[in-house]
Amino acid sequence: MDRDAILLTPGPLTTTLRTKLAMLRDWGSWDADFNRLTADLRARLLAIVHGAESHVVVPLQGSGTFSVEAAVATVVPRDGHILVLDNGAYCKRLARLSTLMGRRTTIVPHAEDAAVSPAELDARLAADASITHVGLIHCETGTGVLNPLAAVADVCARHGRGLIVDAMSSFAALAIDAREVRFDALIAASGKCLEGVPGMGFVFIRKAVLADCEGRSQSLAMDLHDQHAYMEKTGQWRFTPPTHVVAALLEALRQFDEEGGRPARLARYTDNCRTLIDGMTALGLRPFLEPALQAPIIVTFHAPAHPRYDFRTFYEAAKRRGFILYPGKLTQVETFRVGCIGAIGRNEMRQAVAAVREAMEEMGIGRSE
Amino acid sequence: MDRDAILLTPGPLTTTLRTKLAMLRDWGSWDADFNRLTADLRARLLAIVHGAESHVVVPLQGSGTFSVEAAVATVVPRDGHILVLDNGAYCKRLARLSTLMGRRTTIVPHAEDAAVSPAELDARLAADASITHVGLIHCETGTGVLNPLAAVADVCARHGRGLIVDAMSSFAALAIDAREVRFDALIAASGKCLEGVPGMGFVFIRKAVLADCEGRSQSLAMDLHDQHAYMEKTGQWRFTPPTHVVAALLEALRQFDEEGGRPARLARYTDNCRTLIDGMTALGLRPFLEPALQAPIIVTFHAPAHPRYDFRTFYEAAKRRGFILYPGKLTQVETFRVGCIGAIGRNEMRQAVAAVREAMEEMGIGRSE
Repeated sequence: MDRDAILLTPGPLTTTLRTKLAMLRDWGSWDADFNRLTADLRARLLAIVHGAESHVVVPLQGSGTFSVEAAVATVVPRDGHILVLDNGAYCKRLARLSTLMGRRTTIVPHAEDAAVSPAELDARLAADASITHVGLIHCETGTGVLNPLAAVADVCARHGRGLIVDAMSSFAALAIDAREVRFDALIAASGKCLEGVPGMGFVFIRKAVLADCEGRSQSLAMDLHDQHAYMEKTGQWRFTPPTHVVAALLEALRQFDEEGGRPARLARYTDNCRTLIDGMTALGLRPFLEPALQAPIIVTFHAPAHPRYDFRTFYEAAKRRGFILYPGKLTQVETFRVGCIGAIGRNEMRQAVAAVREAMEEMGIGRSE
Repeated sequence: MDRDAILLTPGPLTTTLRTKLAMLRDWGSWDADFNRLTADLRARLLAIVHGAESHVVVPLQGSGTFSVEAAVATVVPRDGHILVLDNGAYCKRLARLSTLMGRRTTIVPHAEDAAVSPAELDARLAADASITHVGLIHCETGTGVLNPLAAVADVCARHGRGLIVDAMSSFAALAIDAREVRFDALIAASGKCLEGVPGMGFVFIRKAVLADCEGRSQSLAMDLHDQHAYMEKTGQWRFTPPTHVVAALLEALRQFDEEGGRPARLARYTDNCRTLIDGMTALGLRPFLEPALQAPIIVTFHAPAHPRYDFRTFYEAAKRRGFILYPGKLTQVETFRVGCIGAIGRNEMRQAVAAVREAMEEMGIGRSE
């Protein structure tokens, strides 16, 4: 049987056939037709955060992490100081790439099962005037926890510090309004809640800080100021764009609008998440996070507390039933993760729960108590 | 008429439908099926340069330039010194990204219509023991000139210096044999002579230098040592791979082997190049380079010396006839470029020449004398 498995992973994820069909054409990256496609895509991305007045958007080749690194390299001065609010694996990655590129980096550790604390941030910024920027992961995909973007942005604005938001797995689903939430840079990618294919990211940069970003990046490929200036001047990407990925993303954006935009997407993912948690709970599988902290993007479940449980076997049994699960990323607790995003709905989530039930039965685990 | 134009550009280029159809599937980037695909792809790439004994190959997300930057960041120590042999735009880009990331960089300028000089390199290396690495563009796509890779590699080997080769537009067409030509890093990308779609590059790194590369890169995303170590350990990419681009490249590699591998590809491109030059010469259009320097990858032509000539008009007239040309990249001379690579053969090159003839007639230029 060669039917495609449903990807319950936080990107790459299951996309529509229509999105994939948009890749059946070769585009000249220098040609006006492709430039129009890039321009259309950028306008649609800006509209999603209501950012046309306040921000520019700069697409970048590579995975989302490339865009995160580019945002830090472009926005934080070489003698800047970035404070990273850390409650998970992607926070640690942000701190690591900032440190590696030579930006002074301070990590504020939090528990992995809690949101980061705006009050603690407030105290830190009050105590240390050398901090120029704050780094936040909106939805920490390591666990699925939702961090308080608006409150963190308010604290940063009050102290006059820049805010860099990794919104990789939240953008286009959770509400982000650039007219109300002040950020210097916000990063997402093609293969997440927009339901495109992976291969490019994009960074929203606040117009008020853009001019100051010139010459900050020590990386040519990741210099978003340079990428933006060239794109404004020529309509083209500086270096070969992933033309097929770009075309697929534009087609995905058209479907995003047809579905009803961000609110409709959030409603579908919220329903996916509720269907998943209800079904898994009925199987005795317990979510790792408190409900109030749970973003409707990806859910971490405690592994069945059974001696016969083994993730690899569990994964293979679910895969044979057509569903690709995701491993846990916690070091202290045995967990696995299930994504709620992608071109899937309630049917797929119910079928996924049924596949998990059958997988557990096959492993002789039965209902987890 | 919505028939796709033929891309006479040096990547993105025209790919086969079979290659594009490989993108109609979503892959889990953590899944064993995808890991097998990555492993197969890496083995095929190594085989093309006969490098399985001497080299590893590390794929990287992004355009080819990302891989060039990553190669320099990974292979050249932070206190290293790279000498760049410069005879065109891509040489200058290599020097610029090396300088930006803080590696000491020396540029040896050459004329754009000449190959770089192994004799001059020999003298430079003899005179300056601080030079640790040499940077060479195999086929400088700015003009299409072929640089003497084997002779340059011999000079580097004799002096015990590392060699970094940007083989972006030559790899898989021109002969490169790792058993005979010594290089520390050699870079190419998916969307060039392998006829995949753009979105990833790859770097061959000599095993003998790989261990020394740990910790050199100041970029997390571009650290090829880290990318390689993780891939060897897990079979996976460190960060989200462009799964559809990877699948398309593997499908393109299968077709590459079916066609007869590198010699067959070179033969087709050589025939394309000859058909193009013969046809254009008959129209009175003169190649910029001497025949001995011309790689069968992309040809720079002098623009028609006629007051009514204008590249934009010429481009649009050829495009209406189904062919996408490429602008010149020389500052002193008015030129345009025509690629010979991609899933095209003699028919397409003849049709391209006919389209150029009609475009010139439409512009009232006639035969260029």
